[in-house]
Amino acid sequence: MLLSQAINRAFKGYLTLQNSIQNDFELSGIAPLESATSTQISYIDQDKYISSLADSKAGAVLIRESLQDKVPKGIQPLVVANPHLAFALLSALFIQNDFSQSSFAEIASTAFVSPCASLGDNVRIGEDSKIMPGVVIGDNVRIGKNCKIYPNVVIYGNTHIGNNVNIHAGSVIGCDGFGYAHTDKGEHIKIEHSGRVVIEDDVEIGANNTIDRAVFGETIIKKGAKIDNLVQIGHNCVIGEHSILVSQVGLAGSTTTGRNVIFGGQAGTGGHIHIGDFVQVAGRGAVGKNLPPHTKWGGHPLMELDEWMKFYVSLRRMLKKSTPR
Amino acid sequence: MLLSQAINRAFKGYLTLQNSIQNDFELSGIAPLESATSTQISYIDQDKYISSLADSKAGAVLIRESLQDKVPKGIQPLVVANPHLAFALLSALFIQNDFSQSSFAEIASTAFVSPCASLGDNVRIGEDSKIMPGVVIGDNVRIGKNCKIYPNVVIYGNTHIGNNVNIHAGSVIGCDGFGYAHTDKGEHIKIEHSGRVVIEDDVEIGANNTIDRAVFGETIIKKGAKIDNLVQIGHNCVIGEHSILVSQVGLAGSTTTGRNVIFGGQAGTGGHIHIGDFVQVAGRGAVGKNLPPHTKWGGHPLMELDEWMKFYVSLRRMLKKSTPR
Amino acid sequence: MLLSQAINRAFKGYLTLQNSIQNDFELSGIAPLESATSTQISYIDQDKYISSLADSKAGAVLIRESLQDKVPKGIQPLVVANPHLAFALLSALFIQNDFSQSSFAEIASTAFVSPCASLGDNVRIGEDSKIMPGVVIGDNVRIGKNCKIYPNVVIYGNTHIGNNVNIHAGSVIGCDGFGYAHTDKGEHIKIEHSGRVVIEDDVEIGANNTIDRAVFGETIIKKGAKIDNLVQIGHNCVIGEHSILVSQVGLAGSTTTGRNVIFGGQAGTGGHIHIGDFVQVAGRGAVGKNLPPHTKWGGHPLMELDEWMKFYVSLRRMLKKSTPR
Repeated sequence: MLLSQAINRAFKGYLTLQNSIQNDFELSGIAPLESATSTQISYIDQDKYISSLADSKAGAVLIRESLQDKVPKGIQPLVVANPHLAFALLSALFIQNDFSQSSFAEIASTAFVSPCASLGDNVRIGEDSKIMPGVVIGDNVRIGKNCKIYPNVVIYGNTHIGNNVNIHAGSVIGCDGFGYAHTDKGEHIKIEHSGRVVIEDDVEIGANNTIDRAVFGETIIKKGAKIDNLVQIGHNCVIGEHSILVSQVGLAGSTTTGRNVIFGGQAGTGGHIHIGDFVQVAGRGAVGKNLPPHTKWGGHPLMELDEWMKFYVSLRRMLKKSTPR
Repeated sequence: MLLSQAINRAFKGYLTLQNSIQNDFELSGIAPLESATSTQISYIDQDKYISSLADSKAGAVLIRESLQDKVPKGIQPLVVANPHLAFALLSALFIQNDFSQSSFAEIASTAFVSPCASLGDNVRIGEDSKIMPGVVIGDNVRIGKNCKIYPNVVIYGNTHIGNNVNIHAGSVIGCDGFGYAHTDKGEHIKIEHSGRVVIEDDVEIGANNTIDRAVFGETIIKKGAKIDNLVQIGHNCVIGEHSILVSQVGLAGSTTTGRNVIFGGQAGTGGHIHIGDFVQVAGRGAVGKNLPPHTKWGGHPLMELDEWMKFYVSLRRMLKKSTPR
Repeated sequence: MLLSQAINRAFKGYLTLQNSIQNDFELSGIAPLESATSTQISYIDQDKYISSLADSKAGAVLIRESLQDKVPKGIQPLVVANPHLAFALLSALFIQNDFSQSSFAEIASTAFVSPCASLGDNVRIGEDSKIMPGVVIGDNVRIGKNCKIYPNVVIYGNTHIGNNVNIHAGSVIGCDGFGYAHTDKGEHIKIEHSGRVVIEDDVEIGANNTIDRAVFGETIIKKGAKIDNLVQIGHNCVIGEHSILVSQVGLAGSTTTGRNVIFGGQAGTGGHIHIGDFVQVAGRGAVGKNLPPHTKWGGHPLMELDEWMKFYVSLRRMLKKSTPR
């Protein structure tokens, strides 16, 4: 599909292209500025990302009128009122089919695949791995050696799983992330997620978890991490080596952690923050900012753990003083 | 089954009818006062609902002795010590079978239904919709056009789903709501839920969510609403158009929202409250009262967002002053 | 396998046995001091458990050098730097297969098992019980009379379920508990859980819950308890008769409750605590200590409910006084 055709089809009823296309080309997809190739579109929504534009190899870039002059020669500017919405609309043209009927699978002779499991196209399963009844595996999934995928787990397309990984019943790996652009009328236009989930060696994932695929690139669960039940991991998160997430933790999109980080039960994070190596967050702790390595935290609002432990005592003393009985 | 027979069978060992039945009739079911017909039973448990009795078309009403005189002629009073318990006991006689063996389904020629999906009786699936492996659909379910029902989703009987709806893996739609009446001995008697879930057009529902059916009537997710993963929506909730529920939100029964409401991650509500149009509740916010339109809230206890943002700073200053170090 | 062989195989690369084995024997498994037999290993990690050693019938005990002298004659001491880690490493030798291909099942003639359900080996299903499509049942599971196991529920091996039990769609019963020992390098070594889940009569379990099996012994949901959706129950929990757990509650391992306890939505507990009969914990309440019978609690930090209700008012008054506007 030509760039011009893609834009006509995607923008219909929502947006208008405000300039003309000088260099039409056969469009292959959408990508961030850093990784886009000459047959892909990228977008810039905020001024602060403008510096990435100079080095981009993108074929075209969605951009506001006010920033149009910053686009280097060789990149076709696509001037629109709302580049983020334009990006979402275009993403719908490049949806990948996640759960095709299997036409090819490469299953090691020592692997076990239940006859009650469903495999998508082009799946590979390594030696001694066990795929139990009711498991549904999407297209292009790779599963390493000696893994146990328990009943009714769902693994979306393109997920890569290392060796010695256990995923317990009912967990969903590689689900679409929760990302939308918004129209003037308050509608939400889905951003189709083309990234994937990567799970490294020796990871254990409990039951009924949800781990979202990345918008672009990868959501990563690193080597040796252990995840309890009913945990939510948003798109583009990176969980560091040997980290521990206790039950019902919720990590918003693009939370990244160092190694051996511990989150207690029902703790959570806002998005786009980094948690340093060996940080401990107590149960129910609510993290809204970057945390330096080797520190301990708790509470909501978040306080250093020492302070949080004293909080209740202080508060109670104070309230007793000030409250008439 | 005659009314008298139904009562004998249902009350056995738990309750005694304290008056006599003048007008026995063939009983067809249970319903709220407002919608009950002359072959249905209804109930009144609290004095404040007594005004609804005058206009009711119910055939009989479960009622306390003290309110017996308020029952209009034409409605058979059924005097019992605990009308709510009586209602729960009777509800067990009218359980619908949710997942029958399919004897009829109407599937559009352009729809795809995986051979690894299970359909109940009398299911209809619209054009271009895709039912993936491991999906289980109950009796009388309607699914519109261009929907994607991802692997291992379960849709209980009588659910109605519009067009362009995505439901991600592992979500459960139309599960029984959590409602019980209680005996003197502390046992809980299940209230069988005869309502259903309605999902309007353009809704997206993430992975491993649970959306309960209504006791009576409908739990409704309105047009364009977007729901993340691991969210709980209780019986009889109504989620307004284009509203957004981020991961791990929990809405108690009969929470209703206006349009374009946003709940941040892990936020929650108590039951029977209304959230106005365009309200925003920050992550972890705990809502226990009605909220007016166009307001922002956070914290637990809930405060206006401005106040909540200042809360931590104030608290810390105060604690520093008052805490001996 | 001989004790000596088991130790060689399990410790490889992680631990060294610091003494010699005088009494080698054919090892049959691992068990707690109280229940271990003469062909089983047990372990002691903390001084406070040393009193249990005198009465133990264990064949061998993993122990620190400093406690070696306390081991009675007749028990083979196994001196290691980290007995907990040694226990975890050895547990991997005794993993039971949870989901075998069925070679035997005993299904009552009035029970219904969907052709789309999967049964492990040696399963028994009682009269009038209904196993719906997509359900996966592990080895040696017992299900009583008149149960409804809704679609896509997964029941791990050895779970025992009584009569009149409903388990709603997507719930996972008997999943491995979340327990690991830790190496010096910060790796987590899985403790294989050999316990099981027991669900007594008249229990109802909602959708997408997770109930973990015990390390040893049993996780128990007692008669008449009712559990909503998306609830996490950790290993070795005991939920008392007629208790109620509202949606998204999370109970950490070894939480035990009396009868008729109520947990509001999103409440949680730390581990190893006991909640007395008839205790009520308000929604979002965070319990970190034992609670006496017939008391009511709320908040985080936890306060008595009365205090918690006044908390917000007091706090606000105080902040208003102290905050410059």
